[in-house]
Amino acid sequence: MSVSEDVRNMKSVSPLVASADSAVRNEALRLAALALKEHQDEIFEANREDLQRAEKAGIAPAVMKRLKFDAHKLSDCLAGIDSLMALENPTGRITLHRQLDEGLILKRVTVPIGVIGIIFEARPDALVQISCLCIKSGNCAVLKGGKETASTNKVLFTLIEQAAIQAGLPKGCLLQVSAHSEIDELLTCDDSVDLLIPRGSNAFVRYIMDHTKIPVMGHSDGVCHTYVDKAADMDLAIPILIDAKTQYTAACNATETLLVHRGIADAFLPKAAKALAQAGVKLRGTQEVSEILARSASLSDCDLAAESSAASAPYPSGFAAEDIMTEEDFNTEYLDLVLSVKLVDSVEEAAAHINRFGSHHTDCILTQDDEAAMRFMALVDSAGVYRNCSTRFADGFRYGFGAEVGISTGKLHARGPVGLDGLVTYKYLLEGSGQIVADYASQAKQFHFKDL
Amino acid sequence: MSVSEDVRNMKSVSPLVASADSAVRNEALRLAALALKEHQDEIFEANREDLQRAEKAGIAPAVMKRLKFDAHKLSDCLAGIDSLMALENPTGRITLHRQLDEGLILKRVTVPIGVIGIIFEARPDALVQISCLCIKSGNCAVLKGGKETASTNKVLFTLIEQAAIQAGLPKGCLLQVSAHSEIDELLTCDDSVDLLIPRGSNAFVRYIMDHTKIPVMGHSDGVCHTYVDKAADMDLAIPILIDAKTQYTAACNATETLLVHRGIADAFLPKAAKALAQAGVKLRGTQEVSEILARSASLSDCDLAAESSAASAPYPSGFAAEDIMTEEDFNTEYLDLVLSVKLVDSVEEAAAHINRFGSHHTDCILTQDDEAAMRFMALVDSAGVYRNCSTRFADGFRYGFGAEVGISTGKLHARGPVGLDGLVTYKYLLEGSGQIVADYASQAKQFHFKDL
Repeated sequence: MSVSEDVRNMKSVSPLVASADSAVRNEALRLAALALKEHQDEIFEANREDLQRAEKAGIAPAVMKRLKFDAHKLSDCLAGIDSLMALENPTGRITLHRQLDEGLILKRVTVPIGVIGIIFEARPDALVQISCLCIKSGNCAVLKGGKETASTNKVLFTLIEQAAIQAGLPKGCLLQVSAHSEIDELLTCDDSVDLLIPRGSNAFVRYIMDHTKIPVMGHSDGVCHTYVDKAADMDLAIPILIDAKTQYTAACNATETLLVHRGIADAFLPKAAKALAQAGVKLRGTQEVSEILARSASLSDCDLAAESSAASAPYPSGFAAEDIMTEEDFNTEYLDLVLSVKLVDSVEEAAAHINRFGSHHTDCILTQDDEAAMRFMALVDSAGVYRNCSTRFADGFRYGFGAEVGISTGKLHARGPVGLDGLVTYKYLLEGSGQIVADYASQAKQFHFKDL
Repeated sequence: MSVSEDVRNMKSVSPLVASADSAVRNEALRLAALALKEHQDEIFEANREDLQRAEKAGIAPAVMKRLKFDAHKLSDCLAGIDSLMALENPTGRITLHRQLDEGLILKRVTVPIGVIGIIFEARPDALVQISCLCIKSGNCAVLKGGKETASTNKVLFTLIEQAAIQAGLPKGCLLQVSAHSEIDELLTCDDSVDLLIPRGSNAFVRYIMDHTKIPVMGHSDGVCHTYVDKAADMDLAIPILIDAKTQYTAACNATETLLVHRGIADAFLPKAAKALAQAGVKLRGTQEVSEILARSASLSDCDLAAESSAASAPYPSGFAAEDIMTEEDFNTEYLDLVLSVKLVDSVEEAAAHINRFGSHHTDCILTQDDEAAMRFMALVDSAGVYRNCSTRFADGFRYGFGAEVGISTGKLHARGPVGLDGLVTYKYLLEGSGQIVADYASQAKQFHFKDL
């Protein structure tokens, strides 16, 4: 069968999944955990194949770590399934209950979205997490994982699919696609797929967004900012900035641009530049920033001439010409130990820069001034707006959601880290006893609204 | 200035609108109502121009009624603004308040979406309603109304815009575009426009959906179903069916397809066909339906031969060949006094037909059987699923929302009739006191989640 046929079939069974009792869905999770444990040797063996192939292909050690699925990762997965089972059922919640007139009762009830396509990176634990989130929320899922872990994915998928069917969910409620060409076919299935969640490189996510009519949830860019206000506490600011930039540079919530209030720039920038240089961060920025650093470096050269040799100068002495930025460079996501730097005159200017050049992901103000913080948090139009902490906190686990399917920079439906809540929608149920609109149009009857 | 420049400017002022106090927004509404009242002669004069132009163009009387803006419509608009002012502010609501760790507090707060483009039919009262909904919810709005009421729209828009600015909202928070070519330019502004709400013909809405990267909220089709279950109360069923089909045939929530359980078809169909024929409804349907009607007509001819003449035969005697439908015809939205008819064997088959051929708008079961009703309401994947009442109830006013911007058949963000709630999104605000992720990654610190 082709992907389109499979997905059309999935669409037709999706109401059965949606209306399955939450006990059935939890039983599917319980059986999945059991199967993963029982078949762990099979899983580890498949993973060894993947790792050997990756090693031959010369894949970098840091990436290899993500491909690996060992006893430690399995135990994390099992703990994750346990906590997912304990979470409240996200469907069937009544969010509105209203009498429209006597005997005419309206309810708004949360329901699964339906059919969700998720394209994710080569990490076997992601397959477990995502498929279990979909089962818990009553959704059907089309899964496409990274090809580097194809063997592991195949074993994991089969175990979880069998557990779902054994628990009573209909055949076809989960689907794995593996060829890259199948993604293109999936993108055309806008009649059957309700939502796509692509994870991966910016270019890839952008490609998905540009080539489908299916709604897409995710983020292509993560240009996050840390703004050091004139009322910042410098002792807090530098560790936060180092964490935001360097704790995991490849993450979408790592800070890419440092904005500094002109009123604190002379005092703050040299200190920050020193700390950043020690952490291996290369600065790029405006001419003005370069001049401040050059000035402070020459001052410090004088002050410290006796102690410090030119070779180990702790202060960067301005930028090389290629590191001087123009305005239009400020939308760069480095995902590396590089940081853009710019000065601003006010909270308002910082917010305007962020709204224009940022990606509406996560942006932070460092300040002890409550009013400046409030203003910043009101003006910045991002999924996460922070004060006095690292932008790296933007994450479903750190928000206490238990698990996340991704982070959305879109403004509709779900924004920021997306957990179970983002995988449901609602429908309106109206129960009457023969009511017709003509009676209300002619005013023979009147509505009597009453929330129940 | 071009539309793109105007809209880019709007995007840059939108955070100021979003962060304006709700008192400022209500003041804008109050001033708008005042201005509409004070300048009513000017408005009526502009409307007379529109009506004269429409009359010359030979526009149908039913449409002319919608173009008209008189004292009665003005008073409806003013009452609408009054009730909007009284509604709770939809922004600034805290929907999550959680301690992540000591001194690290997360809030999820509702905020305006930002910049919304709304393209609506030639109805001056729609301009007032839509712009006021946007002001109330803190959104900037680009408005494009039907060209038939261009003169009225211009006066109304100017009055409301001036009121908004006088109340303290920034210049550029509202924008009116009038040329059709400007819509195409608007569709390209995906950097500045957060949401498009097109209202109008199916073909037009479909065109918008197919030609922009901006998220679109609305519905292109309204293929609604009424399913008469075998346990239906026929005395309730017929008036409901007549209302659902005929009370306003041009509405998206009018029933287009009648599904009937085979177990009740012989008893129900002839009665329904008679009532529908009397209401001027023409039936189309499957061969089987045609045969039942032909059979019952010939039976009734015998029974009633003495009383009824052939010319006034109250029962349709089957369909003409061109009214026999094949499976694929069942996705037709007639918006006219025509009804598709098909028989099914079960609630499940009815739901499967609706999910396949419907438009996920509003569908109803007529039954006295609670279990059948529950099953239907769980299986049908539509914005509204009803029991024992007319599909015509799908409407923001009838749901008690006070006002609506439209009805969404999409499943993400907002579904069904969309009121103020659909015009907001949320952001996460995180306030810390120096927290960095490295401390939690190294387990030097642990999260202590606590909902506040």
